[in-house]
Amino acid sequence: MTNIRDLAREANVSVTTVSRVLNDHPYVANEKRQAVREAIEKLGYIRNQTAVHLSTGMTKTVGVMLPFVDHPYHAAILQGIAQAAFDASYRFLTWQTNYVETHEQLALDALAQQEIDALIVVSHSLPLSAILSYEQYGPIVFCEHHEDVAAVYIDHYTAFQQGLAHLRQQGHTSIGICLGRPDSTNSLARKHAYQEVVRDEFVYEQTLTIEDGATVARRWMQQKQRPTAILTASDHVAAGLILELRKQGYQVPGDLSVIGFDGSELAEVLAMTTIAIPYATIGRHAFQLTVREDLVARPQIEVPSTFIAGTTVLPHT
Amino acid sequence: MTNIRDLAREANVSVTTVSRVLNDHPYVANEKRQAVREAIEKLGYIRNQTAVHLSTGMTKTVGVMLPFVDHPYHAAILQGIAQAAFDASYRFLTWQTNYVETHEQLALDALAQQEIDALIVVSHSLPLSAILSYEQYGPIVFCEHHEDVAAVYIDHYTAFQQGLAHLRQQGHTSIGICLGRPDSTNSLARKHAYQEVVRDEFVYEQTLTIEDGATVARRWMQQKQRPTAILTASDHVAAGLILELRKQGYQVPGDLSVIGFDGSELAEVLAMTTIAIPYATIGRHAFQLTVREDLVARPQIEVPSTFIAGTTVLPHT
Repeated sequence: MTNIRDLAREANVSVTTVSRVLNDHPYVANEKRQAVREAIEKLGYIRNQTAVHLSTGMTKTVGVMLPFVDHPYHAAILQGIAQAAFDASYRFLTWQTNYVETHEQLALDALAQQEIDALIVVSHSLPLSAILSYEQYGPIVFCEHHEDVAAVYIDHYTAFQQGLAHLRQQGHTSIGICLGRPDSTNSLARKHAYQEVVRDEFVYEQTLTIEDGATVARRWMQQKQRPTAILTASDHVAAGLILELRKQGYQVPGDLSVIGFDGSELAEVLAMTTIAIPYATIGRHAFQLTVREDLVARPQIEVPSTFIAGTTVLPHT
Repeated sequence: MTNIRDLAREANVSVTTVSRVLNDHPYVANEKRQAVREAIEKLGYIRNQTAVHLSTGMTKTVGVMLPFVDHPYHAAILQGIAQAAFDASYRFLTWQTNYVETHEQLALDALAQQEIDALIVVSHSLPLSAILSYEQYGPIVFCEHHEDVAAVYIDHYTAFQQGLAHLRQQGHTSIGICLGRPDSTNSLARKHAYQEVVRDEFVYEQTLTIEDGATVARRWMQQKQRPTAILTASDHVAAGLILELRKQGYQVPGDLSVIGFDGSELAEVLAMTTIAIPYATIGRHAFQLTVREDLVARPQIEVPSTFIAGTTVLPHT
């Protein structure tokens, strides 16, 4: 590729002169400016953006560290980031990490090397302190709650309380919950809300997909003691649970009341009772935080969840 | 940030010596090598990846130009790219273009500036020739069919023929279709397959979302002459159509047979008859093409679609 030295040779001027012409510096003789412009045209020179970065100190690129591009929750946050980045004429560089720490490290390295202006961490495996040690290189914004970090998040404790309160108002006392990764920050908050209101525990862990929901249905059918209602942590799990039970001849909500979580299209088409999370809003706020001037104060934005009454909960009789 | 000149000053050696140490060049005196290493440790130098690129000529980054991150079709292709990139230890830089040409241009500029090793074009507005003029800078792979480009694609003509043949086998002669953007390459191929087998045309254009499907339902209800079956170009549109008709007291498939398109989770939970497209496979193949040695020969990979019999088509009586 043509570089600034090729231009200097072609135009028979110094590299400094080429640089001045490229940067619209006033002190360049007109004939030299003209010679450089002709060289640019002749050689088809395209300005190297990295050089632009060195002068402005900005890449206009935001990095996104996220475990899975195809996880509906993460994909929806990414969409919000993408939209806000598009509106601000930023690009985004994505690291799908699969929760592998060496892959998470690549995103941190990119911040240290100033390949990106800021990093949005959708979810992570690395210790928080390891990530925060890179704050010296640029803004880091999290999409989950931690003490004393810049973050946009859902209060999963309160969101789960909403769902549990609804089930109890409907007379359910034997209530189960489905969780994802058992030790994640979100799961711990959800379990906390659950353990405050129930005595017998029905916790179905490691549930993420429609297939996992079907597995929960089969476990429920085999249980002697079983809950009359299940609050899930994902519409996908709820959909799998509902469809498998109906396939096996059970009534939802007649035999089991089910509440989803996410407020996704699956909940919409199944007319599911669910807790809607504005994921795209989280992504949009996260992008906007990265460019906020008071970011050093590590601002936090809590995004509210919304209970949506559907057709998959009946009063317990 | 510490740079190579800071290291040279700290170690009291030349910049060239620092560069040789960083690149494991053999001809460096041991004490100088040691001094540079101590400077690296003392100053907390992190190697600038751009410099690495200049020597290897590789960024290990693939660019993705796609209209919408949240479009289910595009998101699924992106997921396939992400997985293949992850497996190959590549990152991906995404431009969500919203079909705006100036945004598409940014992705092409990045290829010209060697910020990315290759570019995957999921869909585009710019003329094909404008995009191909950037092939001199690196591989460009398309996820839709064009003559004489490197591409991974679905034959939408054949896919639509599959759906239409099924409806005709079931006795339907009055058949409608839903299309997306009316002039897109895919829509033209679909319309072509349609016009070969029908006389009266029922074409519903600009349909992309669940809401658009509900609009088609309302239009269908108001039509005096109306089709007995509709083949859509998206499970989302089919879902909206089915749910709105059922809400208004019509039977699907009793009053109208409906076929989706995509093979998405929506089709799964609604037990929809659909044509499944392996979008993630398209993305994976597209990434793999970018690193193929015979890419200059512009290879093309056609990915087959699969008819999935569900519960939303009945024979016409």
